[in-house]
Amino acid sequence: MKSFIDVAPESHFPIQNLPYGVFSRSGEDARHIGVAIGDYVLDLSAVKDLIDGPTISQHRDVFDAAVLNPLMALPKAAWTETRASLQKILSSDEAVLRDNAELRARALVPQASVTMHLPASIGDYTDFYSSREHATNLGTMFRDASNPLLPNWLHIPVGYHGRASSVIVSGQDIRRPRGQTRPKDDEPPVFGPSRLLDFELEMAFFVGQGNPLGEPIPIEKAQDHIFGMVVMNDWSARDIQKWEYVPLGPFLGKNFGTSISPWVVTMDALAPFTVPNPVQDPVPLPYLRHEDPYSFDINLSVAIAPEGKEGKVVTNSNLKHMYWTMKQQLAHHTINGCNAQPGDLLGSGTISGKTPDSYGSMIELSWRGTKEIDLGEGEVRKFLKDNDTVIMSGFCQGEGFRVGFGECRSKLLPALE
Amino acid sequence: MKSFIDVAPESHFPIQNLPYGVFSRSGEDARHIGVAIGDYVLDLSAVKDLIDGPTISQHRDVFDAAVLNPLMALPKAAWTETRASLQKILSSDEAVLRDNAELRARALVPQASVTMHLPASIGDYTDFYSSREHATNLGTMFRDASNPLLPNWLHIPVGYHGRASSVIVSGQDIRRPRGQTRPKDDEPPVFGPSRLLDFELEMAFFVGQGNPLGEPIPIEKAQDHIFGMVVMNDWSARDIQKWEYVPLGPFLGKNFGTSISPWVVTMDALAPFTVPNPVQDPVPLPYLRHEDPYSFDINLSVAIAPEGKEGKVVTNSNLKHMYWTMKQQLAHHTINGCNAQPGDLLGSGTISGKTPDSYGSMIELSWRGTKEIDLGEGEVRKFLKDNDTVIMSGFCQGEGFRVGFGECRSKLLPALE
Ligand SMILES: [Ca+2]
Ligand SMILES: [Ca+2]
Ligand SMILES: [Mg+2]
Ligand SMILES: [Mg+2]
Ligand code: NI
Repeated sequence: MKSFIDVAPESHFPIQNLPYGVFSRSGEDARHIGVAIGDYVLDLSAVKDLIDGPTISQHRDVFDAAVLNPLMALPKAAWTETRASLQKILSSDEAVLRDNAELRARALVPQASVTMHLPASIGDYTDFYSSREHATNLGTMFRDASNPLLPNWLHIPVGYHGRASSVIVSGQDIRRPRGQTRPKDDEPPVFGPSRLLDFELEMAFFVGQGNPLGEPIPIEKAQDHIFGMVVMNDWSARDIQKWEYVPLGPFLGKNFGTSISPWVVTMDALAPFTVPNPVQDPVPLPYLRHEDPYSFDINLSVAIAPEGKEGKVVTNSNLKHMYWTMKQQLAHHTINGCNAQPGDLLGSGTISGKTPDSYGSMIELSWRGTKEIDLGEGEVRKFLKDNDTVIMSGFCQGEGFRVGFGECRSKLLPALE
Repeated sequence: MKSFIDVAPESHFPIQNLPYGVFSRSGEDARHIGVAIGDYVLDLSAVKDLIDGPTISQHRDVFDAAVLNPLMALPKAAWTETRASLQKILSSDEAVLRDNAELRARALVPQASVTMHLPASIGDYTDFYSSREHATNLGTMFRDASNPLLPNWLHIPVGYHGRASSVIVSGQDIRRPRGQTRPKDDEPPVFGPSRLLDFELEMAFFVGQGNPLGEPIPIEKAQDHIFGMVVMNDWSARDIQKWEYVPLGPFLGKNFGTSISPWVVTMDALAPFTVPNPVQDPVPLPYLRHEDPYSFDINLSVAIAPEGKEGKVVTNSNLKHMYWTMKQQLAHHTINGCNAQPGDLLGSGTISGKTPDSYGSMIELSWRGTKEIDLGEGEVRKFLKDNDTVIMSGFCQGEGFRVGFGECRSKLLPALE
């Protein structure tokens, strides 16, 4: 499969990918839905009449929306039909766009010239805690090194509700939060900028069709409700989190911002990179069991760029390390009847691998601030400094092509005075 | 102040109240904004040309919306102008509506004939834990009777993110959730319907104008961002909650549904019922300090009606018991830069008084299932049974009138098979 548009082998956006995003043209406010192809965005509102299939042809108005929610709300068949149509339109064998200069000029926009926006209106955002290595590392540091996992961890994909309003798209800056902390256990709490600001390397999926309140999504059907994935940075203020989180969980230590990459890579594009699921022992309860592989080999990295310097990669991880699958997360989330909706965002939890160079947060990489993370040129970190830029990225390696996520990049601004 | 519409002294909806809600007429899908007056709803889309003031006159389109969010997003001055206009239109001295039979027929709809809907599109829902008595009762039961409050409780209004999608309006039923619990600490978890289903008597406020991400709402201005209040039932499955909540807080034990009363009582209507704030010792950090009274004397009750029987009141409480004020909750929530948005819902936490007949949940009323709650006619409860209806209500007692919230009523349906 090959596009008439030139795509370099290391590009994240070959014709095998075609991730969805929301963009606006330079100098325009109007937002449009597009797919990334090479260095271009294909504006779907400009080619919607060419998108065909028994389901999607009844719903082409979704390509005029300013968010992906209406497309997400359609049955999975509509997503598959759209992908097939777009691959055809963009293929080197197909003349309809290739040989129509007027349409190409309207529909293909250089990525370098557009502004990317949040791909969906996010009704609810949930974050899980599904990496065994991450949970083990935190349990070892903060609880009991000989028994680091809590009793429920191997039985349920533990998760919590995050803040939807503060999810931002790559390219937007984040401000260091101020808040209440208690640096010394025997002294009163104090107020000021967080001193222990961290990233969390995560991925997240967008829900497609939802479920009515009271009617769970069974695990056998969970894949039909998962639209696609992004890379996510769950910014975390460890000192605020530590003082506030008992007994109701993370709140102000997390909700000052969560960054996501702008391109939503579909599950159809990720399907070739499926790998066997992790062995789960004990076997989970039946409502969480599935045999079909739904783990993915996605290479992930995080770089930190101090102000005015190049980014230095500080960790390399992989989504395949996760203990709980996305199908299990969604089936668990709705088993009590909780209603998921198109555009809901469900985060994986920090993705840590087994080795120290694959840990997904600075608190693990610096082992609670006891080690320095080397950024080269004399720069070291335990936690983030003001004006550091955190750059996350991810891709699947195919034969001669990559299915990638682009970047999730945000700069940490100093706290307010 | 008196309306030309007859309002009984025990009505919740005299001209002193005028709470906002969203309704549809019998047989119609279209949703309109209205205020309750006596046994009627005044359709604001039908009288919008009569609503006047320097701010609101520029924005009368908010009265054509199907949710209150656009009105909430206006500056507080617009709310005050609208209230003054509506009190004038409805007053016994004013002919404009009183003597216009055609307009009355279009604008005044019997409440008995309408369907009420969620008053706002709720972007994010947060629940606090701000009753000292409730936190003390739970700490006594589950942690340490001699030291029931956790170390952070007196320093921060502890809260967590709830689920926005499953907030429902009074009159909608709720289904008993199924889920994973661990009835015996030394045996594996099991799956099935929750056996310990509880209500939590709460109130909640809707955010008016929001704040940009990164810019806190200072406590001196918090009242300008609080639109109004509702009564709320934070349904809780205690057995699911107990097994899942460590370390990230409540999740499936809560997110299967939260019921709210349909009428949003404005802070202007509640102002006459302000009472002194609780004494806070230790004095909180400066970002949480305010001198102006922002506690309210609101009588609250909960009744349980078994299938086919009358409701029996099981507790009487009052919002004035809360330790943390709504101003403190909102200032705390945004101090890290978290962005609040019009229509966000912030719950008080369970409102328990000092005496056992004023506790705000069944786990407290039955003292963890060790006592029976008498419903009369031979009916007793420790937790809810299938087909029980829970009816919450609240009002402020004025001289010869009540400013009330109406009811928050939902029936508990049996779990799915
Ligand atoms: Ca996280
Ligand atoms: Ca609650
Ligand atoms: Mg976050
Ligand atoms: Mg709830
Ligand atoms: Ni109508």
